[in-house]
Amino acid sequence: MIVCAGSIALDTTHTPFKSAKRILGGSASYFGIASSFFTKTALVSAVGSDFPEDYWRALEKHCDLAGVERAEGKTFFFESKFDFDLHNRTALGLEEGVFPSAKWSVPEYLQNPEILFLNSHHPAVDAKVLKQMRPRLVFGDTIEYLTRQQKPLLLEFLKKTDGYVLNETEARILSGESNLVKAGKKIQAQGPEIVVVKKGEHGGLLFYGSEVFPFPALPLENIVDPTGAGDCFAGGFLGWIDEQNKVSETVLRQACYYGTVMASFCVEAFGLNNLLVLEEKDIHKRLNEYHRIAFCEV
Amino acid sequence: MIVCAGSIALDTTHTPFKSAKRILGGSASYFGIASSFFTKTALVSAVGSDFPEDYWRALEKHCDLAGVERAEGKTFFFESKFDFDLHNRTALGLEEGVFPSAKWSVPEYLQNPEILFLNSHHPAVDAKVLKQMRPRLVFGDTIEYLTRQQKPLLLEFLKKTDGYVLNETEARILSGESNLVKAGKKIQAQGPEIVVVKKGEHGGLLFYGSEVFPFPALPLENIVDPTGAGDCFAGGFLGWIDEQNKVSETVLRQACYYGTVMASFCVEAFGLNNLLVLEEKDIHKRLNEYHRIAFCEV
Repeated sequence: MIVCAGSIALDTTHTPFKSAKRILGGSASYFGIASSFFTKTALVSAVGSDFPEDYWRALEKHCDLAGVERAEGKTFFFESKFDFDLHNRTALGLEEGVFPSAKWSVPEYLQNPEILFLNSHHPAVDAKVLKQMRPRLVFGDTIEYLTRQQKPLLLEFLKKTDGYVLNETEARILSGESNLVKAGKKIQAQGPEIVVVKKGEHGGLLFYGSEVFPFPALPLENIVDPTGAGDCFAGGFLGWIDEQNKVSETVLRQACYYGTVMASFCVEAFGLNNLLVLEEKDIHKRLNEYHRIAFCEV
Repeated sequence: MIVCAGSIALDTTHTPFKSAKRILGGSASYFGIASSFFTKTALVSAVGSDFPEDYWRALEKHCDLAGVERAEGKTFFFESKFDFDLHNRTALGLEEGVFPSAKWSVPEYLQNPEILFLNSHHPAVDAKVLKQMRPRLVFGDTIEYLTRQQKPLLLEFLKKTDGYVLNETEARILSGESNLVKAGKKIQAQGPEIVVVKKGEHGGLLFYGSEVFPFPALPLENIVDPTGAGDCFAGGFLGWIDEQNKVSETVLRQACYYGTVMASFCVEAFGLNNLLVLEEKDIHKRLNEYHRIAFCEV
Protein backbone atom coordinates (compact mmCIF):
# COMPACT_ATOMS: atom_id res chain seq x y z
CA MET A 1 0.00 0.00 0.00
CA ILE A 2 1.02 3.61 -0.66
CA VAL A 3 0.08 6.48 1.60
CA CYS A 4 0.36 9.92 0.02
CA ALA A 5 0.23 13.10 2.07
CA GLY A 6 -0.57 16.04 -0.16
CA SER A 7 -3.13 18.57 -1.24
CA ILE A 8 -6.67 18.01 -2.42
CA ALA A 9 -7.65 21.25 -4.06
CA LEU A 10 -10.09 23.18 -6.17
CA ASP A 11 -8.28 24.49 -9.26
CA THR A 12 -9.22 27.27 -11.58
CA THR A 13 -7.04 26.83 -14.64
CA HIS A 14 -6.71 29.00 -17.73
CA THR A 15 -5.04 27.80 -20.91
CA PRO A 16 -5.08 29.62 -24.27
CA PHE A 17 -7.82 27.22 -25.39
CA LYS A 18 -10.02 26.72 -22.35
CA SER A 19 -10.67 27.81 -18.79
CA ALA A 20 -12.25 25.73 -16.07
CA LYS A 21 -13.36 26.88 -12.63
CA ARG A 22 -12.97 25.07 -9.32
CA ILE A 23 -12.27 21.65 -10.80
CA LEU A 24 -10.88 18.78 -8.73
CA GLY A 25 -7.13 19.21 -8.33
CA GLY A 26 -4.24 19.07 -5.88
CA SER A 27 -1.06 17.00 -5.77
CA ALA A 28 -2.60 14.09 -3.81
CA SER A 29 -5.61 13.84 -6.14
CA TYR A 30 -3.46 13.51 -9.25
CA PHE A 31 -0.97 11.21 -7.55
CA GLY A 32 -3.56 8.99 -5.90
CA ILE A 33 -5.72 8.44 -8.95
CA ALA A 34 -2.66 7.59 -11.08
CA SER A 35 -1.23 5.30 -8.41
CA SER A 36 -4.57 3.55 -7.82
CA PHE A 37 -4.29 1.77 -11.19
CA PHE A 38 -1.32 -0.16 -9.79
CA THR A 39 -1.81 -0.55 -6.04
CA LYS A 40 -3.95 0.30 -3.03
CA THR A 41 -3.49 4.02 -2.36
CA ALA A 42 -4.56 6.06 0.65
CA LEU A 43 -4.50 9.85 0.89
CA VAL A 44 -3.72 11.98 3.93
CA SER A 45 -5.07 15.48 3.40
CA ALA A 46 -7.85 17.89 4.31
CA VAL A 47 -10.75 19.47 2.49
CA GLY A 48 -13.20 22.18 3.55
CA SER A 49 -16.96 22.16 3.85
CA ASP A 50 -17.20 23.64 0.33
CA PHE A 51 -15.69 20.51 -1.20
CA PRO A 52 -18.24 19.12 -3.69
CA GLU A 53 -19.69 15.73 -2.87
CA ASP A 54 -19.21 14.42 -6.42
CA TYR A 55 -15.46 15.21 -6.23
CA TRP A 56 -15.30 13.25 -2.97
CA ARG A 57 -17.04 10.30 -4.61
CA ALA A 58 -14.73 10.47 -7.65
CA LEU A 59 -11.67 10.33 -5.39
CA GLU A 60 -13.20 7.63 -3.20
CA LYS A 61 -13.62 5.37 -6.24
CA HIS A 62 -9.80 5.29 -6.50
CA CYS A 63 -8.35 5.99 -3.08
CA ASP A 64 -8.82 5.26 0.62
CA LEU A 65 -9.89 8.62 2.08
CA ALA A 66 -9.94 7.67 5.78
CA GLY A 67 -6.94 9.97 6.28
CA VAL A 68 -8.64 12.96 4.67
CA GLU A 69 -10.06 15.39 7.23
CA ARG A 70 -13.29 17.17 6.37
CA ALA A 71 -12.84 20.44 8.24
CA GLU A 72 -14.94 23.56 8.66
CA GLY A 73 -13.71 26.18 6.23
CA LYS A 74 -12.53 26.38 2.67
CA THR A 75 -10.75 23.85 0.50
CA PHE A 76 -7.26 24.70 -0.77
CA PHE A 77 -7.78 26.80 -3.91
CA PHE A 78 -5.33 27.52 -6.72
CA GLU A 79 -5.86 29.67 -9.78
CA SER A 80 -3.28 29.77 -12.54
CA LYS A 81 -2.79 30.65 -16.15
CA PHE A 82 -0.59 28.99 -18.76
CA ASP A 83 1.20 30.96 -21.48
CA PHE A 84 0.44 30.33 -25.13
CA ASP A 85 2.75 27.33 -25.58
CA LEU A 86 1.85 25.78 -22.18
CA HIS A 87 5.45 26.00 -20.98
CA ASN A 88 5.09 28.56 -18.21
CA ARG A 89 2.40 28.88 -15.58
CA THR A 90 1.61 32.06 -13.69
CA ALA A 91 -0.10 31.79 -10.29
CA LEU A 92 -3.10 34.13 -10.15
CA GLY A 93 -4.41 33.21 -6.74
CA LEU A 94 -3.87 30.80 -3.88
CA GLU A 95 -6.01 30.30 -0.77
CA GLU A 96 -4.70 27.68 1.58
CA GLY A 97 -8.05 27.38 3.38
CA VAL A 98 -8.17 24.52 5.90
CA PHE A 99 -4.78 23.21 4.73
CA PRO A 100 -2.39 24.80 7.28
CA SER A 101 -4.63 24.24 10.32
CA ALA A 102 -5.54 20.64 9.45
CA LYS A 103 -4.72 17.86 11.93
CA TRP A 104 -2.77 15.66 9.51
CA SER A 105 -3.60 12.74 11.70
CA VAL A 106 -3.01 9.34 10.13
CA PRO A 107 -5.43 6.48 11.02
CA GLU A 108 -3.58 3.65 12.73
CA TYR A 109 -4.18 1.08 10.00
CA LEU A 110 -2.44 3.41 7.51
CA GLN A 111 0.68 3.95 9.61
CA ASN A 112 2.75 1.04 8.22
CA PRO A 113 2.58 1.29 4.42
CA GLU A 114 5.21 -0.09 2.08
CA ILE A 115 5.61 3.40 0.62
CA LEU A 116 4.95 6.82 2.07
CA PHE A 117 4.94 9.66 -0.46
CA LEU A 118 5.32 13.10 1.08
CA ASN A 119 3.85 15.37 -1.53
CA SER A 120 2.38 18.23 0.55
CA HIS A 121 5.03 20.80 -0.48
CA HIS A 122 5.03 21.95 3.15
CA PRO A 123 8.07 20.74 5.10
CA ALA A 124 6.23 21.07 8.43
CA VAL A 125 3.28 19.00 7.21
CA ASP A 126 5.59 16.36 5.75
CA ALA A 127 7.45 16.14 9.09
CA LYS A 128 4.21 15.87 11.06
CA VAL A 129 2.95 13.01 8.88
CA LEU A 130 6.29 11.20 8.84
CA LYS A 131 6.46 11.28 12.65
CA GLN A 132 3.29 9.20 12.93
CA MET A 133 4.40 6.52 10.55
CA ARG A 134 6.72 3.53 10.09
CA PRO A 135 6.83 3.12 6.29
CA ARG A 136 9.25 0.76 4.57
CA LEU A 137 10.25 3.42 2.05
CA VAL A 138 9.90 7.20 2.14
CA PHE A 139 9.70 9.18 -1.08
CA GLY A 140 9.49 12.95 -1.31
CA ASP A 141 9.05 15.61 -3.90
CA THR A 142 9.17 19.38 -3.87
CA ILE A 143 8.03 22.47 -5.73
CA GLU A 144 10.09 25.24 -7.27
CA TYR A 145 9.43 28.08 -4.84
CA LEU A 146 10.39 25.85 -1.89
CA THR A 147 13.77 24.99 -3.44
CA ARG A 148 14.38 28.72 -3.63
CA GLN A 149 13.05 29.71 -0.22
CA GLN A 150 13.75 26.71 2.01
CA LYS A 151 16.81 25.06 0.53
CA PRO A 152 18.58 24.26 3.85
CA LEU A 153 15.39 22.71 5.28
CA LEU A 154 14.88 20.59 2.17
CA LEU A 155 18.49 19.42 2.15
CA GLU A 156 18.03 18.31 5.76
CA PHE A 157 14.75 16.56 4.86
CA LEU A 158 16.46 14.63 2.05
CA LYS A 159 18.34 12.60 4.67
CA LYS A 160 15.07 11.00 5.75
CA THR A 161 14.09 9.84 2.28
CA ASP A 162 14.86 6.72 0.25
CA GLY A 163 13.79 8.37 -2.97
CA TYR A 164 13.17 11.85 -4.31
CA VAL A 165 11.28 13.00 -7.39
CA LEU A 166 11.75 16.54 -8.69
CA ASN A 167 11.86 18.52 -11.92
CA GLU A 168 14.97 19.83 -13.65
CA THR A 169 14.64 23.41 -12.39
CA GLU A 170 14.16 22.22 -8.82
CA ALA A 171 17.14 19.85 -9.18
CA ARG A 172 19.36 22.67 -10.43
CA ILE A 173 18.36 25.03 -7.61
CA LEU A 174 18.56 22.42 -4.86
CA SER A 175 21.98 21.14 -5.96
CA GLY A 176 23.51 24.38 -7.20
CA GLU A 177 24.62 22.46 -10.31
CA SER A 178 23.65 23.38 -13.86
CA ASN A 179 24.55 19.95 -15.27
CA LEU A 180 21.66 17.60 -14.46
CA VAL A 181 23.85 14.53 -14.02
CA LYS A 182 25.93 16.35 -11.43
CA ALA A 183 22.72 17.74 -9.89
CA GLY A 184 21.12 14.31 -9.49
CA LYS A 185 24.25 12.82 -7.97
CA LYS A 186 24.61 15.68 -5.53
CA ILE A 187 21.01 15.20 -4.38
CA GLN A 188 21.66 11.47 -3.96
CA ALA A 189 24.68 12.33 -1.83
CA GLN A 190 22.34 14.12 0.61
CA GLY A 191 20.42 10.92 1.33
CA PRO A 192 18.10 9.30 -1.20
CA GLU A 193 19.53 6.35 -3.12
CA ILE A 194 16.86 6.88 -5.79
CA VAL A 195 16.40 10.23 -7.54
CA VAL A 196 14.26 10.98 -10.56
CA VAL A 197 14.80 14.28 -12.37
CA LYS A 198 11.70 14.95 -14.48
CA LYS A 199 12.16 17.00 -17.66
CA GLY A 200 8.57 17.27 -18.92
CA GLU A 201 8.41 16.83 -22.70
CA HIS A 202 12.06 15.69 -22.64
CA GLY A 203 11.50 12.68 -20.36
CA GLY A 204 13.77 12.29 -17.39
CA LEU A 205 16.81 10.83 -15.67
CA LEU A 206 16.68 8.03 -13.12
CA PHE A 207 19.56 7.94 -10.63
CA TYR A 208 19.97 4.65 -8.77
CA GLY A 209 23.13 3.82 -6.88
CA SER A 210 25.98 4.96 -9.11
CA GLU A 211 24.01 4.64 -12.34
CA VAL A 212 22.05 7.15 -14.45
CA PHE A 213 19.30 5.95 -16.77
CA PRO A 214 17.76 8.41 -19.27
CA PHE A 215 14.26 7.90 -20.62
CA PRO A 216 12.35 9.94 -23.22
CA ALA A 217 8.80 11.22 -22.91
CA LEU A 218 6.08 10.09 -25.28
CA PRO A 219 5.99 12.48 -28.25
CA LEU A 220 2.58 14.11 -27.89
CA GLU A 221 1.01 16.33 -30.49
CA ASN A 222 -1.88 17.65 -28.45
CA ILE A 223 -1.08 18.85 -24.99
CA VAL A 224 -4.17 20.36 -23.39
CA ASP A 225 -3.24 21.01 -19.75
CA PRO A 226 0.09 20.17 -18.06
CA THR A 227 -1.40 20.48 -14.54
CA GLY A 228 -0.62 17.44 -12.43
CA ALA A 229 1.69 15.73 -14.92
CA GLY A 230 4.50 15.46 -12.39
CA ASP A 231 2.16 14.00 -9.75
CA CYS A 232 0.80 11.48 -12.26
CA PHE A 233 4.38 10.54 -13.13
CA ALA A 234 5.03 9.92 -9.44
CA GLY A 235 1.77 7.94 -9.21
CA GLY A 236 2.72 5.57 -12.03
CA PHE A 237 6.32 5.40 -10.78
CA LEU A 238 5.56 4.55 -7.14
CA GLY A 239 2.45 2.55 -8.03
CA TRP A 240 4.53 0.18 -10.15
CA ILE A 241 7.25 -0.12 -7.48
CA ASP A 242 4.64 -0.98 -4.85
CA GLU A 243 2.86 -3.45 -7.11
CA GLN A 244 6.18 -5.23 -7.78
CA ASN A 245 6.89 -5.06 -4.06
CA LYS A 246 10.61 -4.65 -4.53
CA VAL A 247 13.23 -2.11 -5.50
CA SER A 248 15.70 -3.14 -8.19
CA GLU A 249 17.26 -1.50 -11.20
CA THR A 250 14.76 -3.21 -13.50
CA VAL A 251 11.73 -2.34 -11.38
CA LEU A 252 12.80 1.30 -11.08
CA ARG A 253 13.40 1.64 -14.81
CA GLN A 254 10.04 0.07 -15.60
CA ALA A 255 8.51 2.39 -13.02
CA CYS A 256 9.83 5.40 -14.97
CA TYR A 257 8.07 4.10 -18.08
CA TYR A 258 4.77 3.66 -16.25
CA GLY A 259 5.21 7.14 -14.78
CA THR A 260 5.81 8.50 -18.28
CA VAL A 261 2.67 6.80 -19.56
CA MET A 262 0.48 8.11 -16.71
CA ALA A 263 1.80 11.66 -17.23
CA SER A 264 1.05 11.43 -20.95
CA PHE A 265 -2.62 10.62 -20.30
CA CYS A 266 -2.80 13.45 -17.80
CA VAL A 267 -1.64 16.24 -20.13
CA GLU A 268 -3.83 15.18 -23.04
CA ALA A 269 -7.00 16.32 -21.28
CA PHE A 270 -8.07 19.13 -18.99
CA GLY A 271 -7.57 18.53 -15.26
CA LEU A 272 -8.27 14.94 -14.27
CA ASN A 273 -10.68 14.33 -17.18
CA ASN A 274 -8.57 11.59 -18.77
CA LEU A 275 -7.45 9.92 -15.57
CA LEU A 276 -10.98 9.60 -14.20
CA VAL A 277 -12.17 7.54 -17.18
CA LEU A 278 -8.95 5.65 -17.85
CA GLU A 279 -8.97 1.84 -17.99
CA GLU A 280 -6.13 -0.55 -17.28
CA LYS A 281 -6.08 -1.72 -20.87
CA ASP A 282 -5.38 1.88 -22.01
CA ILE A 283 -2.27 1.91 -19.83
CA HIS A 284 -0.96 -1.38 -21.21
CA LYS A 285 -1.65 -0.31 -24.77
CA ARG A 286 0.26 2.94 -24.35
CA LEU A 287 3.11 1.23 -22.50
CA ASN A 288 3.49 -1.11 -25.47
CA GLU A 289 3.46 1.84 -27.84
CA TYR A 290 6.09 3.62 -25.73
CA HIS A 291 8.22 0.51 -25.81
CA ARG A 292 7.85 0.18 -29.57
CA ILE A 293 8.82 3.75 -30.41
CA ALA A 294 11.47 4.31 -27.74
CA PHE A 295 13.47 1.06 -27.86
CA CYS A 296 15.18 -0.32 -30.93
CA GLU A 297 17.91 -2.95 -31.05
CA VAL A 298 21.25 -2.20 -32.69
CA MET B 1 30.02 7.55 -50.20
CA ILE B 2 28.90 10.78 -48.56
CA VAL B 3 29.75 14.20 -49.91
CA CYS B 4 29.36 17.06 -47.44
CA ALA B 5 29.39 20.70 -48.53
CA GLY B 6 30.11 22.92 -45.58
CA SER B 7 32.60 25.13 -43.83
CA ILE B 8 36.15 24.37 -42.85
CA ALA B 9 37.05 27.04 -40.36
CA LEU B 10 39.45 28.39 -37.81
CA ASP B 11 37.62 28.72 -34.49
CA THR B 12 38.51 30.79 -31.48
CA THR B 13 36.36 29.44 -28.66
CA HIS B 14 36.01 30.68 -25.10
CA THR B 15 34.40 28.59 -22.39
CA PRO B 16 34.39 29.42 -18.66
CA PHE B 17 37.21 26.90 -18.23
CA LYS B 18 39.40 27.30 -21.28
CA SER B 19 39.99 29.36 -24.39
CA ALA B 20 41.62 28.16 -27.59
CA LYS B 21 42.66 30.25 -30.58
CA ARG B 22 42.28 29.42 -34.26
CA ILE B 23 41.72 25.71 -33.79
CA LEU B 24 40.40 23.48 -36.57
CA GLY B 25 36.62 23.89 -36.83
CA GLY B 26 33.72 24.34 -39.22
CA SER B 27 30.61 22.29 -39.92
CA ALA B 28 32.22 20.11 -42.61
CA SER B 29 35.25 19.31 -40.43
CA TYR B 30 33.12 18.06 -37.55
CA PHE B 31 30.70 16.24 -39.82
CA GLY B 32 33.35 14.66 -42.01
CA ILE B 33 35.54 13.34 -39.23
CA ALA B 34 32.52 11.84 -37.43
CA SER B 35 31.14 10.34 -40.62
CA SER B 36 34.54 8.92 -41.66
CA PHE B 37 34.32 6.27 -38.92
CA PHE B 38 31.41 4.72 -40.83
CA THR B 39 31.88 5.40 -44.52
CA LYS B 40 33.98 7.13 -47.18
CA THR B 41 33.40 10.86 -46.79
CA ALA B 42 34.39 13.69 -49.11
CA LEU B 43 34.21 17.39 -48.30
CA VAL B 44 33.36 20.26 -50.61
CA SER B 45 34.60 23.50 -49.13
CA ALA B 46 37.29 26.16 -49.33
CA VAL B 47 40.18 27.25 -47.14
CA GLY B 48 42.52 30.21 -47.40
CA SER B 49 46.28 30.40 -47.71
CA ASP B 50 46.51 30.85 -43.93
CA PHE B 51 45.08 27.36 -43.31
CA PRO B 52 47.69 25.43 -41.29
CA GLU B 53 49.24 22.45 -43.01
CA ASP B 54 48.81 20.19 -39.97
CA TYR B 55 45.06 20.89 -39.93
CA TRP B 56 44.91 19.91 -43.60
CA ARG B 57 46.77 16.68 -42.84
CA ALA B 58 44.48 15.92 -39.89
CA LEU B 59 41.41 16.33 -42.10
CA GLU B 60 43.01 14.38 -44.95
CA LYS B 61 43.51 11.38 -42.67
CA HIS B 62 39.70 11.12 -42.44
CA CYS B 63 38.20 12.70 -45.54
CA ASP B 64 38.67 13.04 -49.28
CA LEU B 65 39.65 16.71 -49.77
CA ALA B 66 39.68 16.82 -53.59
CA GLY B 67 36.62 19.07 -53.42
CA VAL B 68 38.24 21.55 -51.04
CA GLU B 69 39.56 24.62 -52.82
CA ARG B 70 42.74 26.21 -51.50
CA ALA B 71 42.18 29.85 -52.40
CA GLU B 72 44.20 33.02 -51.93
CA GLY B 73 42.89 34.83 -48.88
CA LYS B 74 41.76 33.99 -45.42
CA THR B 75 40.05 30.91 -44.02
CA PHE B 76 36.54 31.25 -42.58
CA PHE B 77 37.02 32.42 -38.98
CA PHE B 78 34.58 32.25 -36.09
CA GLU B 79 35.08 33.51 -32.55
CA SER B 80 32.52 32.75 -29.87
CA LYS B 81 32.03 32.59 -26.15
CA PHE B 82 29.89 30.20 -24.11
CA ASP B 83 28.08 31.29 -20.97
CA PHE B 84 28.87 29.68 -17.63
CA ASP B 85 26.67 26.62 -18.03
CA LEU B 86 27.58 26.11 -21.72
CA HIS B 87 23.97 26.55 -22.81
CA ASN B 88 24.23 29.79 -24.75
CA ARG B 89 26.89 30.88 -27.19
CA THR B 90 27.60 34.50 -28.13
CA ALA B 91 29.27 35.23 -31.46
CA LEU B 92 32.20 37.60 -30.96
CA GLY B 93 33.51 37.69 -34.49
CA LEU B 94 33.02 36.15 -37.90
CA GLU B 95 35.14 36.60 -41.03
CA GLU B 96 33.87 34.69 -44.02
CA GLY B 97 37.24 34.99 -45.81
CA VAL B 98 37.41 32.96 -49.02
CA PHE B 99 34.07 31.29 -48.29
CA PRO B 100 31.62 33.44 -50.28
CA SER B 101 33.85 33.80 -53.36
CA ALA B 102 34.89 30.15 -53.51
CA LYS B 103 34.13 28.14 -56.66
CA TRP B 104 32.26 25.30 -54.95
CA SER B 105 33.17 23.12 -57.86
CA VAL B 106 32.68 19.41 -57.29
CA PRO B 107 35.16 17.00 -58.95
CA GLU B 108 33.40 14.69 -61.40
CA TYR B 109 34.09 11.49 -59.48
CA LEU B 110 32.31 12.99 -56.44
CA GLN B 111 29.15 13.99 -58.31
CA ASN B 112 27.18 10.75 -57.80
CA PRO B 113 27.38 9.93 -54.09
CA GLU B 114 24.82 7.89 -52.21
CA ILE B 115 24.31 10.82 -49.84
CA LEU B 116 24.85 14.54 -50.28
CA PHE B 117 24.80 16.54 -47.06
CA LEU B 118 24.30 20.26 -47.59
CA ASN B 119 25.74 21.78 -44.47
CA SER B 120 27.11 25.13 -45.66
CA HIS B 121 24.39 27.25 -43.97
CA HIS B 122 24.33 29.35 -47.14
CA PRO B 123 21.32 28.62 -49.35
CA ALA B 124 23.12 29.94 -52.45
CA VAL B 125 26.13 27.70 -51.84
CA ASP B 126 23.91 24.69 -51.18
CA ALA B 127 22.04 25.34 -54.44
CA LYS B 128 25.27 25.72 -56.42
CA VAL B 129 26.63 22.42 -55.10
CA LEU B 130 23.34 20.57 -55.58
CA LYS B 131 23.14 21.69 -59.21
CA GLN B 132 26.37 19.88 -60.07
CA MET B 133 25.36 16.60 -58.50
CA ARG B 134 23.14 13.55 -58.90
CA PRO B 135 23.07 12.08 -55.38
CA ARG B 136 20.74 9.26 -54.37
CA LEU B 137 19.68 11.10 -51.22
CA VAL B 138 19.91 14.76 -50.26
CA PHE B 139 20.08 15.78 -46.61
CA GLY B 140 20.17 19.33 -45.35
CA ASP B 141 20.57 21.19 -42.12
CA THR B 142 20.34 24.82 -41.11
CA ILE B 143 21.40 27.30 -38.47
CA GLU B 144 19.26 29.47 -36.23
CA TYR B 145 19.84 32.90 -37.79
CA LEU B 146 18.91 31.56 -41.23
CA THR B 147 15.59 30.19 -40.00
CA ARG B 148 14.87 33.70 -38.77
CA GLN B 149 16.14 35.64 -41.78
CA GLN B 150 15.50 33.36 -44.74
CA LYS B 151 12.50 31.26 -43.80
CA PRO B 152 10.74 31.36 -47.23
CA LEU B 153 13.95 30.36 -49.02
CA LEU B 154 14.55 27.47 -46.61
CA LEU B 155 10.98 26.23 -46.91
CA GLU B 156 11.45 26.19 -50.70
CA PHE B 157 14.77 24.35 -50.32
CA LEU B 158 13.14 21.67 -48.15
CA LYS B 159 11.30 20.40 -51.24
CA LYS B 160 14.60 19.25 -52.71
CA THR B 161 15.65 17.19 -49.69
CA ASP B 162 14.98 13.62 -48.60
CA GLY B 163 16.03 14.35 -45.04
CA TYR B 164 16.54 17.34 -42.80
CA VAL B 165 18.41 17.65 -39.51
CA LEU B 166 17.85 20.67 -37.27
CA ASN B 167 17.70 21.67 -33.65
CA GLU B 168 14.57 22.37 -31.62
CA THR B 169 14.78 26.17 -31.83
CA GLU B 170 15.29 26.02 -35.60
CA ALA B 171 12.38 23.57 -35.91
CA ARG B 172 10.08 25.85 -33.94
CA ILE B 173 11.00 28.94 -35.99
CA LEU B 174 10.86 27.18 -39.37
CA SER B 175 7.49 25.56 -38.67
CA GLY B 176 5.88 28.27 -36.57
CA GLU B 177 4.83 25.54 -34.13
CA SER B 178 5.79 25.47 -30.47
CA ASN B 179 4.99 21.76 -30.06
CA LEU B 180 7.94 19.82 -31.49
CA VAL B 181 5.85 16.91 -32.76
CA LYS B 182 3.70 19.32 -34.75
CA ALA B 183 6.87 21.18 -35.84
CA GLY B 184 8.56 18.05 -37.18
CA LYS B 185 5.45 16.93 -39.06
CA LYS B 186 5.00 20.35 -40.61
CA ILE B 187 8.61 20.30 -41.83
CA GLN B 188 8.07 16.81 -43.27
CA ALA B 189 5.01 18.14 -45.09
CA GLN B 190 7.28 20.61 -46.93
CA GLY B 191 9.30 17.81 -48.51
CA PRO B 192 11.68 15.62 -46.51
CA GLU B 193 10.34 12.18 -45.49
CA ILE B 194 13.01 12.05 -42.76
CA VAL B 195 13.38 14.79 -40.14
CA VAL B 196 15.52 14.74 -37.02
CA VAL B 197 14.89 17.40 -34.38
CA LYS B 198 17.98 17.54 -32.16
CA LYS B 199 17.47 18.61 -28.54
CA GLY B 200 21.06 18.62 -27.25
CA GLU B 201 21.25 17.16 -23.74
CA HIS B 202 17.63 15.99 -24.12
CA GLY B 203 18.28 13.75 -27.13
CA GLY B 204 15.99 14.12 -30.11
CA LEU B 205 13.00 13.10 -32.17
CA LEU B 206 13.18 11.13 -35.40
CA PHE B 207 10.30 11.64 -37.82
CA TYR B 208 9.99 8.99 -40.53
CA GLY B 209 6.84 8.64 -42.60
CA SER B 210 3.99 9.04 -40.15
CA GLU B 211 5.97 7.86 -37.11
CA VAL B 212 7.85 9.76 -34.39
CA PHE B 213 10.65 8.04 -32.46
CA PRO B 214 12.13 9.75 -29.38
CA PHE B 215 15.66 9.00 -28.23
CA PRO B 216 17.50 10.29 -25.15
CA ALA B 217 21.03 11.70 -25.08
CA LEU B 218 23.79 10.05 -23.10
CA PRO B 219 23.82 11.52 -19.59
CA LEU B 220 27.19 13.30 -19.49
CA GLU B 221 28.69 14.75 -16.38
CA ASN B 222 31.54 16.66 -17.97
CA ILE B 223 30.69 18.76 -20.96
CA VAL B 224 33.71 20.73 -22.08
CA ASP B 225 32.75 22.35 -25.37
CA PRO B 226 29.44 21.90 -27.23
CA THR B 227 30.91 23.22 -30.52
CA GLY B 228 30.21 20.86 -33.41
CA ALA B 229 27.94 18.47 -31.49
CA GLY B 230 25.13 18.82 -34.02
CA ASP B 231 27.50 18.22 -36.94
CA CYS B 232 28.95 15.15 -35.22
CA PHE B 233 25.41 13.88 -34.66
CA ALA B 234 24.76 14.30 -38.38
CA GLY B 235 28.08 12.56 -39.14
CA GLY B 236 27.21 9.48 -37.09
CA PHE B 237 23.60 9.54 -38.34
CA LEU B 238 24.37 9.77 -42.07
CA GLY B 239 27.55 7.70 -41.77
CA TRP B 240 25.55 4.77 -40.40
CA ILE B 241 22.83 5.15 -43.05
CA ASP B 242 25.44 5.13 -45.80
CA GLU B 243 27.31 2.17 -44.31
CA GLN B 244 24.05 0.20 -44.17
CA ASN B 245 23.31 1.37 -47.71
CA LYS B 246 19.59 1.51 -47.14
CA VAL B 247 16.89 3.59 -45.51
CA SER B 248 14.48 1.79 -43.23
CA GLU B 249 12.89 2.49 -39.89
CA THR B 250 15.44 0.29 -38.13
CA VAL B 251 18.45 1.79 -39.91
CA LEU B 252 17.25 5.34 -39.21
CA ARG B 253 16.68 4.62 -35.54
CA GLN B 254 20.08 2.99 -35.18
CA ALA B 255 21.52 5.99 -37.03
CA CYS B 256 20.12 8.28 -34.33
CA TYR B 257 21.94 6.24 -31.68
CA TYR B 258 25.24 6.43 -33.57
CA GLY B 259 24.70 10.15 -34.02
CA THR B 260 24.08 10.48 -30.29
CA VAL B 261 27.28 8.58 -29.51
CA MET B 262 29.41 10.69 -31.88
CA ALA B 263 27.98 13.92 -30.41
CA SER B 264 28.76 12.68 -26.89
CA PHE B 265 32.43 12.19 -27.72
CA CYS B 266 32.53 15.62 -29.34
CA VAL B 267 31.30 17.61 -26.34
CA GLU B 268 33.55 15.85 -23.83
CA ALA B 269 36.67 17.54 -25.19
CA PHE B 270 37.63 20.89 -26.61
CA GLY B 271 37.10 21.34 -30.37
CA LEU B 272 37.92 18.17 -32.31
CA ASN B 273 40.36 16.86 -29.68
CA ASN B 274 38.34 13.73 -28.93
CA LEU B 275 37.25 12.97 -32.46
CA LEU B 276 40.80 13.15 -33.83
CA VAL B 277 42.07 10.40 -31.54
CA LEU B 278 38.90 8.30 -31.44
CA GLU B 279 39.05 4.60 -32.33
CA GLU B 280 36.27 2.41 -33.69
CA LYS B 281 36.27 0.30 -30.56
CA ASP B 282 35.46 3.42 -28.48
CA ILE B 283 32.34 3.95 -30.59
CA HIS B 284 31.14 0.37 -30.17
CA LYS B 285 31.82 0.44 -26.45
CA ARG B 286 29.79 3.62 -25.97
CA LEU B 287 27.00 2.40 -28.22
CA ASN B 288 26.71 -0.69 -26.02
CA GLU B 289 26.65 1.49 -22.92
CA TYR B 290 23.96 3.72 -24.47
CA HIS B 291 21.93 0.65 -25.27
CA ARG B 292 22.33 -0.70 -21.74
CA ILE B 293 21.25 2.46 -19.94
CA ALA B 294 18.56 3.66 -22.36
CA PHE B 295 16.66 0.43 -23.15
CA CYS B 296 15.01 -1.80 -20.58
CA GLU B 297 12.36 -4.46 -21.20
CA VAL B 298 9.02 -4.28 -19.44
